[in-house]
Amino acid sequence: MSVFLKNILYKIQNNEISIEDAVKEIDKMYYYNLEYAVLDTNRQFRKGFPEVVFCQGKQKDHILSILRKLIELSDNNILATRANSDIYKTVVQEIPDAEFNPIANTIIIRKRKPMGIGNILVISAGTADLPVAEEAAVTAEIMGNNVSKLYDMGVAGLHRLLAQSKKLLEANVIIAVAGMDGALPSVVAGLVSNPVIAVPTSIGYGANFSGLSALLTMLNSCSPGIGVVNIDNGFGAGYLASTINHLATS
Amino acid sequence: MSVFLKNILYKIQNNEISIEDAVKEIDKMYYYNLEYAVLDTNRQFRKGFPEVVFCQGKQKDHILSILRKLIELSDNNILATRANSDIYKTVVQEIPDAEFNPIANTIIIRKRKPMGIGNILVISAGTADLPVAEEAAVTAEIMGNNVSKLYDMGVAGLHRLLAQSKKLLEANVIIAVAGMDGALPSVVAGLVSNPVIAVPTSIGYGANFSGLSALLTMLNSCSPGIGVVNIDNGFGAGYLASTINHLATS
Amino acid sequence: MSVFLKNILYKIQNNEISIEDAVKEIDKMYYYNLEYAVLDTNRQFRKGFPEVVFCQGKQKDHILSILRKLIELSDNNILATRANSDIYKTVVQEIPDAEFNPIANTIIIRKRKPMGIGNILVISAGTADLPVAEEAAVTAEIMGNNVSKLYDMGVAGLHRLLAQSKKLLEANVIIAVAGMDGALPSVVAGLVSNPVIAVPTSIGYGANFSGLSALLTMLNSCSPGIGVVNIDNGFGAGYLASTINHLATS
Amino acid sequence: MSVFLKNILYKIQNNEISIEDAVKEIDKMYYYNLEYAVLDTNRQFRKGFPEVVFCQGKQKDHILSILRKLIELSDNNILATRANSDIYKTVVQEIPDAEFNPIANTIIIRKRKPMGIGNILVISAGTADLPVAEEAAVTAEIMGNNVSKLYDMGVAGLHRLLAQSKKLLEANVIIAVAGMDGALPSVVAGLVSNPVIAVPTSIGYGANFSGLSALLTMLNSCSPGIGVVNIDNGFGAGYLASTINHLATS
Amino acid sequence: MSVFLKNILYKIQNNEISIEDAVKEIDKMYYYNLEYAVLDTNRQFRKGFPEVVFCQGKQKDHILSILRKLIELSDNNILATRANSDIYKTVVQEIPDAEFNPIANTIIIRKRKPMGIGNILVISAGTADLPVAEEAAVTAEIMGNNVSKLYDMGVAGLHRLLAQSKKLLEANVIIAVAGMDGALPSVVAGLVSNPVIAVPTSIGYGANFSGLSALLTMLNSCSPGIGVVNIDNGFGAGYLASTINHLATS
Amino acid sequence: MSVFLKNILYKIQNNEISIEDAVKEIDKMYYYNLEYAVLDTNRQFRKGFPEVVFCQGKQKDHILSILRKLIELSDNNILATRANSDIYKTVVQEIPDAEFNPIANTIIIRKRKPMGIGNILVISAGTADLPVAEEAAVTAEIMGNNVSKLYDMGVAGLHRLLAQSKKLLEANVIIAVAGMDGALPSVVAGLVSNPVIAVPTSIGYGANFSGLSALLTMLNSCSPGIGVVNIDNGFGAGYLASTINHLATS
Amino acid sequence: MSVFLKNILYKIQNNEISIEDAVKEIDKMYYYNLEYAVLDTNRQFRKGFPEVVFCQGKQKDHILSILRKLIELSDNNILATRANSDIYKTVVQEIPDAEFNPIANTIIIRKRKPMGIGNILVISAGTADLPVAEEAAVTAEIMGNNVSKLYDMGVAGLHRLLAQSKKLLEANVIIAVAGMDGALPSVVAGLVSNPVIAVPTSIGYGANFSGLSALLTMLNSCSPGIGVVNIDNGFGAGYLASTINHLATS
Amino acid sequence: MSVFLKNILYKIQNNEISIEDAVKEIDKMYYYNLEYAVLDTNRQFRKGFPEVVFCQGKQKDHILSILRKLIELSDNNILATRANSDIYKTVVQEIPDAEFNPIANTIIIRKRKPMGIGNILVISAGTADLPVAEEAAVTAEIMGNNVSKLYDMGVAGLHRLLAQSKKLLEANVIIAVAGMDGALPSVVAGLVSNPVIAVPTSIGYGANFSGLSALLTMLNSCSPGIGVVNIDNGFGAGYLASTINHLATS
Repeated sequence: MSVFLKNILYKIQNNEISIEDAVKEIDKMYYYNLEYAVLDTNRQFRKGFPEVVFCQGKQKDHILSILRKLIELSDNNILATRANSDIYKTVVQEIPDAEFNPIANTIIIRKRKPMGIGNILVISAGTADLPVAEEAAVTAEIMGNNVSKLYDMGVAGLHRLLAQSKKLLEANVIIAVAGMDGALPSVVAGLVSNPVIAVPTSIGYGANFSGLSALLTMLNSCSPGIGVVNIDNGFGAGYLASTINHLATS
Repeated sequence: MSVFLKNILYKIQNNEISIEDAVKEIDKMYYYNLEYAVLDTNRQFRKGFPEVVFCQGKQKDHILSILRKLIELSDNNILATRANSDIYKTVVQEIPDAEFNPIANTIIIRKRKPMGIGNILVISAGTADLPVAEEAAVTAEIMGNNVSKLYDMGVAGLHRLLAQSKKLLEANVIIAVAGMDGALPSVVAGLVSNPVIAVPTSIGYGANFSGLSALLTMLNSCSPGIGVVNIDNGFGAGYLASTINHLATS
Repeated sequence: MSVFLKNILYKIQNNEISIEDAVKEIDKMYYYNLEYAVLDTNRQFRKGFPEVVFCQGKQKDHILSILRKLIELSDNNILATRANSDIYKTVVQEIPDAEFNPIANTIIIRKRKPMGIGNILVISAGTADLPVAEEAAVTAEIMGNNVSKLYDMGVAGLHRLLAQSKKLLEANVIIAVAGMDGALPSVVAGLVSNPVIAVPTSIGYGANFSGLSALLTMLNSCSPGIGVVNIDNGFGAGYLASTINHLATS
Repeated sequence: MSVFLKNILYKIQNNEISIEDAVKEIDKMYYYNLEYAVLDTNRQFRKGFPEVVFCQGKQKDHILSILRKLIELSDNNILATRANSDIYKTVVQEIPDAEFNPIANTIIIRKRKPMGIGNILVISAGTADLPVAEEAAVTAEIMGNNVSKLYDMGVAGLHRLLAQSKKLLEANVIIAVAGMDGALPSVVAGLVSNPVIAVPTSIGYGANFSGLSALLTMLNSCSPGIGVVNIDNGFGAGYLASTINHLATS
Repeated sequence: MSVFLKNILYKIQNNEISIEDAVKEIDKMYYYNLEYAVLDTNRQFRKGFPEVVFCQGKQKDHILSILRKLIELSDNNILATRANSDIYKTVVQEIPDAEFNPIANTIIIRKRKPMGIGNILVISAGTADLPVAEEAAVTAEIMGNNVSKLYDMGVAGLHRLLAQSKKLLEANVIIAVAGMDGALPSVVAGLVSNPVIAVPTSIGYGANFSGLSALLTMLNSCSPGIGVVNIDNGFGAGYLASTINHLATS
Repeated sequence: MSVFLKNILYKIQNNEISIEDAVKEIDKMYYYNLEYAVLDTNRQFRKGFPEVVFCQGKQKDHILSILRKLIELSDNNILATRANSDIYKTVVQEIPDAEFNPIANTIIIRKRKPMGIGNILVISAGTADLPVAEEAAVTAEIMGNNVSKLYDMGVAGLHRLLAQSKKLLEANVIIAVAGMDGALPSVVAGLVSNPVIAVPTSIGYGANFSGLSALLTMLNSCSPGIGVVNIDNGFGAGYLASTINHLATS
Repeated sequence: MSVFLKNILYKIQNNEISIEDAVKEIDKMYYYNLEYAVLDTNRQFRKGFPEVVFCQGKQKDHILSILRKLIELSDNNILATRANSDIYKTVVQEIPDAEFNPIANTIIIRKRKPMGIGNILVISAGTADLPVAEEAAVTAEIMGNNVSKLYDMGVAGLHRLLAQSKKLLEANVIIAVAGMDGALPSVVAGLVSNPVIAVPTSIGYGANFSGLSALLTMLNSCSPGIGVVNIDNGFGAGYLASTINHLATS
Repeated sequence: MSVFLKNILYKIQNNEISIEDAVKEIDKMYYYNLEYAVLDTNRQFRKGFPEVVFCQGKQKDHILSILRKLIELSDNNILATRANSDIYKTVVQEIPDAEFNPIANTIIIRKRKPMGIGNILVISAGTADLPVAEEAAVTAEIMGNNVSKLYDMGVAGLHRLLAQSKKLLEANVIIAVAGMDGALPSVVAGLVSNPVIAVPTSIGYGANFSGLSALLTMLNSCSPGIGVVNIDNGFGAGYLASTINHLATS
């Protein structure tokens, strides 16, 4: 944000812009009204990271315009979630720096060098949980955190998890992703003293009721120290982990 | 049942009973019609154990009459579940042999010497799950099985469970009782090759929705080899374990 | 597993492998880390049957690699569930022994001669329940059990079931599969003394709520001796039946 | 109703009442406005039976006044459901003919001789279903039907039911009452050609979810010819059975 | 059924069949075992109408074989529900008499002349409820009942319904079909004394939860005399109405 | 509010209060911080009516203090909902003007003369819905509206409602209160052009699921022009009706 | 409607029509019976706006015929909701004046000049809520109201909403549309004194359960003055807002 | 824990204890087996805080024994939740240092001086949420954190919250407690960059479904940076906040 502001102030100093126009420009740092969306351009200031674009249910041209405006008004990295290869094709034609992760279904535009502070561990119960786990990992990484991963660590074969105790203990925050019985976060939180973020996934069938089983398991965990996010909400977990990890390393 | 039948046949032999009356008596081995209940007196023959009395919602005098008739018509042990001390007081006045378990809320009348075959292990996640775990244990024991117990083995402190691996491996059947996150059966079934019966309990609050959380967890377990019974259904688990254990030892 | 281990030990004896490399190989018997999955290669040892591949939501090349590695590291039969003809085409090109069951949607690779111990009976209420019933049958068969079948035995025409009493009484374990009202297991368990595994299916419409009606019926059965598995979980039923049947015949 | 009307017309003939007052009285045959309730006095005419008083949640003095007014304005029997002994004490002091059924929780006032037409059979799965079954039986009987009863006929001991086939086949309508798995109506409707009214009860615990399990089973029955009423709604079943039985015998 | 039986008996008389073969043929009147289905050929005898084929989830060749066998073994009309034009094409090639109703999605084969007894009225709340209403009408008609129809009679424009009072009062049974608020059966049952069968449909969106709203409304109707069937179960309503109408006219 | 403000300004004019103290007093018009509650004293200004006290779950002394402070800081009427006679006894000792309505469970303190603008009609389906209907009526009346009432107008006896058409058409807003099938608002909204506020109640049993049935019915009404409030929320309905009626008469 | 009636009366005056035919024509003002639908042609008279066509689940030719008949019989604007471009193509060929809104999925035919009375504000939480918000806006506009809009005003960036306070305060009615957490109506209703109509949308995923989360939030709002409509029911909100706005400006 | 260990080691040094007995004592640092409970005495080591006693459903003498043993084996503070004054009376007789908080229903025994690190803010929406908010505050305080509180900050009067922006921004972690619409955490998380822990409460009635409404709102928040705990789980929120705050200040 500061880059954007400094540029305006320099222009005033150099008489390249009138005071009236400068005020209009600075107003954009509050919110920016597109026809179909009102960008919360102030969010970087309040929350430390610019508005993230939730692509699901948005038109491709709208996504493109929003991304462009965010790039213009922010000097931080940009993240779009729930994208697909079709959206990406439209975006990359105009924003060649945009990167697509086909498992996480994310688009990112890097405007800052990777900081890589602290240590967030993403752990998943099964291979089918990968899209959610990767969304969490991409989110945390683009927000400037070191991210390590341990996948397919379900409690049906507990020795796989116990063999990784060291990695569990080293993490500032652990994001535990699981569908079906959703038991992984309970076991993980029983082993560590740092916060655990539990992400239920919709993986499974029948009485998993699209993730309800894992969600309820996690909300009722007998291990304390767990915060739960929405079903399949890898983004929310990565974001929350980042706020905690930044606190821990500041 | 055979005792009841033999007595009638002896009476015929000794001319103590007419053929007509003998037929009436033998008919009682099929079903016996009280005014308010039709005893399935044939159940011992079909299922290997006489009808079990579910006390909840029945009047005390009805329970007493049913127990008396079962004692008369069966030579196996008798079990009544979901009783209370009030019901027991009524019962024990007329049936002095009746024993009450105030945690399991069961009444039993022993007509056979303990057989103690095989090995059923009842394991519970928390102290509050005791009534359900004890109902399972009493049921399995009265049906002629050896029963051992491990209580308060929740996955929040996994080392307590792992320290008991030997007992887990020795059991023919394991009954795993848990409320809240209901994660215990998944972990147990990951460690053993014998069948695990999972019993969800209503212990917990809020989004446990009176046991729904534990029930769904168990139905969606990522560990194979688990059969689930109704919430708080210790009796059903003990009964099913007994059928399996009897198969295993026959 | 022993075949794999013996081969390594022979190689050491014959100086065909260094101690360091032998240790690495033996480590594979604990777990084996692919990039996207961590095979629980120890499961055959703990549970008596190797890890089963749940194909739903996995990429075809991942399924193929996992199957190959399981074949390499195990000397038991291999089972993959929730496959389809598309996956099978990819698999069979590289693993010509793979067999596909298009009703059960299973892929199997036989490494052991059929043992055919004991007697598991799979019984279904309707013709539409076939895919679930067949998944149960394939699972039990590949795990070394004798399996017999009775389909379309719904309680709307009870005489069809009663005519098969002999088969019901001969089975060590009965797997009763039903959708809609899910009443079949209650009736079956009322007739036999051996354990019954109830499998609710999602067959039906409207207030069946994708199998919830059958699931609740089975959990609340008035006949004791029933263990319930997840909706449409033929695999889980076949697996549990196998653990019980193996106990019964050992 | 006709008695009430005739009395007014006689009074006009005898000049005991003015035309204005007679109109006011006849208006009462349409509806009658008490302060807290508007009696549908026209219901006897439209539906063939006067309004039934649902006592739950009503004040005792209101119930009494409503009953008195119904007695005054109707020449048919009067029924109040969901009453209790406390309400009855208040009622019987002023209406000595009132009869209380402490199992069905009904109050009746007989104004017609029992007609006893046709044949309605009430059948219940368990002893605990009695209050609902009795409410159905009392309702059908007071509406002028012959009612016979078979209690404790649950499918766990199917021979009890099959032994009563003759009674099942003789009934014009069968009311099948069941809690827990609610499987009884499916089995009954498979045996007869006449209509079956299924009444789920809230009997059970855990995943019966206060009668939901039995309700869903009955709605999803694989046997055709079943109509379902609300959980614990014995009154509704008795009423519907009466409309059918009256049709059958008219 | 009698036609089938008589033919066999004639053959015996004429020595066209051995006693052994005759027994085998007569056995088919009990049940007939196809590979994938066990036809309840006894149902015509018990229930007065042969087994109805539920096409959903069945293979086309199976449906065809079942229909052929039913035609062979029954002398009553044949009904298949939840069919489609694709299934019909397969069927009609071999069974040219088969008729398809593209709104009701039914296939019928007429073997008896229309009896047209009594009077069943099918009434629907909206135009979108037509497929369910038509399934009810076709079912009732093929079972030998007179059927009349009133569609688009929703309570938002009550005068449309009140204008048809005469038709409501003339019917032996009314089938009231409604989605969304499901209020129609309550209003209809308030106007008539004969039984009303309520059919909730899944028509609507949002908090109709695929028909749950209409189902609950109908189960909780404040008008007595209503029996409810499953969501979208036009067949079940038509069948139940037929059993009642046959009673009324016998 | 203005009375409170004027008093302070007069005191300044008369030098009865320092500027510092006046500021502190005026601050109370924004919000007022009690230890256990923060009164939104600004609400009268924003919403036109002061904060309403929801008594459920609050301690009696807290309720008393809150009421006193509201009386001090507001010149409008004061309303407390979900009270009981016990709370009222505590309140009336210190606030003798407080009035209790034992059906609506409301406490009111009148500080303004009744305005009685416009015309709000409260209509209920049954006698048992009275507490909710009365809460709506009391709320609307204390907020300055004319309120008329029609109780026990359920759709089972439609003629009772149709006889009141004139009253329905005269109302600016109709509050329609119903439990069980909740069909009343659909029928009412089909007859009038003004807005209808639908209030589901928890009256009923079984599959009414504590008011869910009526709630879903009302949300899915086929009649347009309906706004729904929470189950049993008479207060919310009265408040919303008041905002509409005030608009209509301003 | 009056135009239609006047034309008939003129024809009588001019002897262009017989009295018999005139009566038939005037009868159409009550209801009009198409084969598949019964148009409530009286609705304009009772409700002030003609029947609105709900296209979902209707055949294209039926929709076309219904629209034509409504155009013939009404002199008000015509609205069809839940249409699509395919339906529109069929309609516009025969009704060239028909206009399609591809976001709101509405078809309108204008027969009156825009009145534009009062002031209804439609406010949405996110860009993805647009289809529902637009359906509300189109409905309110075609019913003769001034409509203004504020989109993407979610509570995550509250300053966007607070910056629009003036617009909030100027509206007679506010329609607040939100998915996910559904918090917007609570915040809006806390700021204004006029009625707020809350529209939950199905936007979101996981534990939003297709709009249930937003629906429950809105029903439980801590701000009074809110009426809720069905999930995604923009039409219902626009209609209700219109009835209120018309009251306010009459 | 170290105090306990040191004492044993000193005793060995001083020959006050045999090696065998010392091993037994040190074993208690792993887990300690009471008859009815297995204390996870190792938890202080793994999680940084000893096991917390959940009193609900436990017998008073069991709670007392568990507390005594925890006091003996730990040198950290001790916490018991979901207690009541009755339990406290039993406890305080033997443990005079025990302190009871009658709003939070907690018992604490302080063994360490308050550390008061960092800054956790507990904020509640309403006065009725106090018990849950206080449970969170007590938990965080006893675990060594500075805790500040802001109660009755519901979004219906947003200015109360905005006036406290400074306190919001100063907190390392915010615990936001709300029932009914549960909107508070969404608004709070929109204003700050640090993590927010959302606690839904069961406060409300009707369609709040015992806290489900608030739970779903919080899981679907449009503001990122939120972790959710179980309904009414103040303890879980306080514990999670403590782990985050300790990370932030370490």
